[in-house]
Amino acid sequence: MITLYSEQQALHCNIQEVLSGELVPSFEVAGRTEIVLKHIMARGLGPVIKPDHFMIESAARVHTREYVDFLQVAWQQWQETFPESTTQAMPYCLPVRRFRSICPDHIEGKLGYYSSDLTAAIVEGSWQAIWASVECALAGQQLIQNGERSVFSLCRPPGHHASQDQMGGYCYLNNAAIAAQAYLDNGCQRVAILDVDYHHGNGTQSIFYDRADVLFTSVHADPSWDYPYFLGYSEETGEGDGKGFNLNLPLALNSHWSDYEPALQKALDKIAAYQPDILLISLGLDSYEEDPISFFKLKSDNYTTMGRLIAELGLPTQFIFEGGYAVDALGTNTANVLEGFQQYRA
Amino acid sequence: MITLYSEQQALHCNIQEVLSGELVPSFEVAGRTEIVLKHIMARGLGPVIKPDHFMIESAARVHTREYVDFLQVAWQQWQETFPESTTQAMPYCLPVRRFRSICPDHIEGKLGYYSSDLTAAIVEGSWQAIWASVECALAGQQLIQNGERSVFSLCRPPGHHASQDQMGGYCYLNNAAIAAQAYLDNGCQRVAILDVDYHHGNGTQSIFYDRADVLFTSVHADPSWDYPYFLGYSEETGEGDGKGFNLNLPLALNSHWSDYEPALQKALDKIAAYQPDILLISLGLDSYEEDPISFFKLKSDNYTTMGRLIAELGLPTQFIFEGGYAVDALGTNTANVLEGFQQYRA
Repeated sequence: MITLYSEQQALHCNIQEVLSGELVPSFEVAGRTEIVLKHIMARGLGPVIKPDHFMIESAARVHTREYVDFLQVAWQQWQETFPESTTQAMPYCLPVRRFRSICPDHIEGKLGYYSSDLTAAIVEGSWQAIWASVECALAGQQLIQNGERSVFSLCRPPGHHASQDQMGGYCYLNNAAIAAQAYLDNGCQRVAILDVDYHHGNGTQSIFYDRADVLFTSVHADPSWDYPYFLGYSEETGEGDGKGFNLNLPLALNSHWSDYEPALQKALDKIAAYQPDILLISLGLDSYEEDPISFFKLKSDNYTTMGRLIAELGLPTQFIFEGGYAVDALGTNTANVLEGFQQYRA
Repeated sequence: MITLYSEQQALHCNIQEVLSGELVPSFEVAGRTEIVLKHIMARGLGPVIKPDHFMIESAARVHTREYVDFLQVAWQQWQETFPESTTQAMPYCLPVRRFRSICPDHIEGKLGYYSSDLTAAIVEGSWQAIWASVECALAGQQLIQNGERSVFSLCRPPGHHASQDQMGGYCYLNNAAIAAQAYLDNGCQRVAILDVDYHHGNGTQSIFYDRADVLFTSVHADPSWDYPYFLGYSEETGEGDGKGFNLNLPLALNSHWSDYEPALQKALDKIAAYQPDILLISLGLDSYEEDPISFFKLKSDNYTTMGRLIAELGLPTQFIFEGGYAVDALGTNTANVLEGFQQYRA
């Protein structure tokens, strides 16, 4: 299996986030993709390729053009407004209920308008990394449409919390959604997304919520008890044309593989019935028992099984890297999914 | 003029807030009311009285009962969830657009549900201070309804950014709105509110936006360029029964008294035409030229004139303390307003 990876993704770094009432170093660090890369190469899972360049327009198919443009100039505007700021651009006031959906002129207001939480700050190299991450997703999509049966887009920063025009949850542009749209724009009729990240993929759900050409399925922590709190409940099944094409399978905190596997199987059954041309996996590894900010109890072996179960669908499959913060085990667990998948296919 | 003040208000302290990408000590400190008290006593403006106790029900007339109950238990729930947290309860994820308005079970989600920004954290003594602040407002309201022509409720924490069920902008319960409702509940027909805080009183506007029995007028910084960013624009004139009873007069950053006075006069003219039974002043002093987080250019003398202009309306008037963060000058500027008012009335 080919892995898509760009070193530019490491330019997004040294972020701080608000957590438990304090500003702490972000768990989403460049070392995450580096250790995954190391394990992929050590196990000989396949070649690692740097993606070609892609045009901004492909992102604007699922994001608003205003939002994509904003991400490119946000750091510069921040520096012009706060020349003494050495750290990061971050909002503090967001347009919640009773506020109007207006994009203000001041950079701190703009950041609020384009954010859904306080975990997606912007630093000097953020845009280069964000776009390199999208390119890893789009290069993978091209390989699949040119006949590859599976690829791994080792994207960072992740994407599944990013909506049409909101960053949040370490995400800026939605790599999986951009790839899904590119498949459709290049001749596919139906794309299925399986999101196995511990956190609900609220951005991806929002983008495709009223559409039948993308099926979104997700196994994740009960949002009443963990991030993103305000989306990801089981009663969210889609709307309009999209009714019935959104499947949320929230699980209680402290769920083990014995709880997880039946939910995963339910999602896989739904995908099989949908008969998609392509399967996209939003591959978060924060369901792991030692993840520092998550509360599922999956073990490293379970990821091998997860890869096999996904492979059993027999679909052209693109894996897109999302969350997972137990850095030491992240290489093992990611490679286990891919190896479990490959071994079944072989 | 009687001043209402409670030492319990100082129990809300040592808060940190997110500002310019960093977590910094809040500008809203207990020293603010202490210096105002000192100047009021030094100038002999009148007696200082500790308020009687009031029932929670009076707050639930403008806030949801669920929100008031939450404020009382938030710190305890936070400590149970994060026993190692020594600082403060604060959210990081808020229900912005595309999210659902659901109140989650987890305390961090609840804090997000009940917040509009990252500047209203909760510490151990917060509730006692919040309620003492409300009692200062309600005791002032009782004095006015018993025949006093003017009172000063030296409230802290402030209130005008608090909506029906959201804290934000250093505010938790809306002292001015609770007092306004109490006037109506005790026989008044019409109450006018003049908000002279540098920041738009978005909470007060929201609470009375569809009502004709409370006129809300506000002179403040253009929200496109400063907090609260997503409310406070001139086109917001009320809705339903409240249409025409909301007057926003935003001014450009760096406005001087020569820009400010005509806007203030416009608000006063609107109030005079409304013929209210009572006038409530949301008295923020952050329009001062040396305020550390604001950008108007008013000088200390201007506050004496402001007090006189308000007095010229000839209405029973309750001043309620809101913002103002240039602590050294805060006593002088607040006392100037009250003295300017008293001198005209004498």
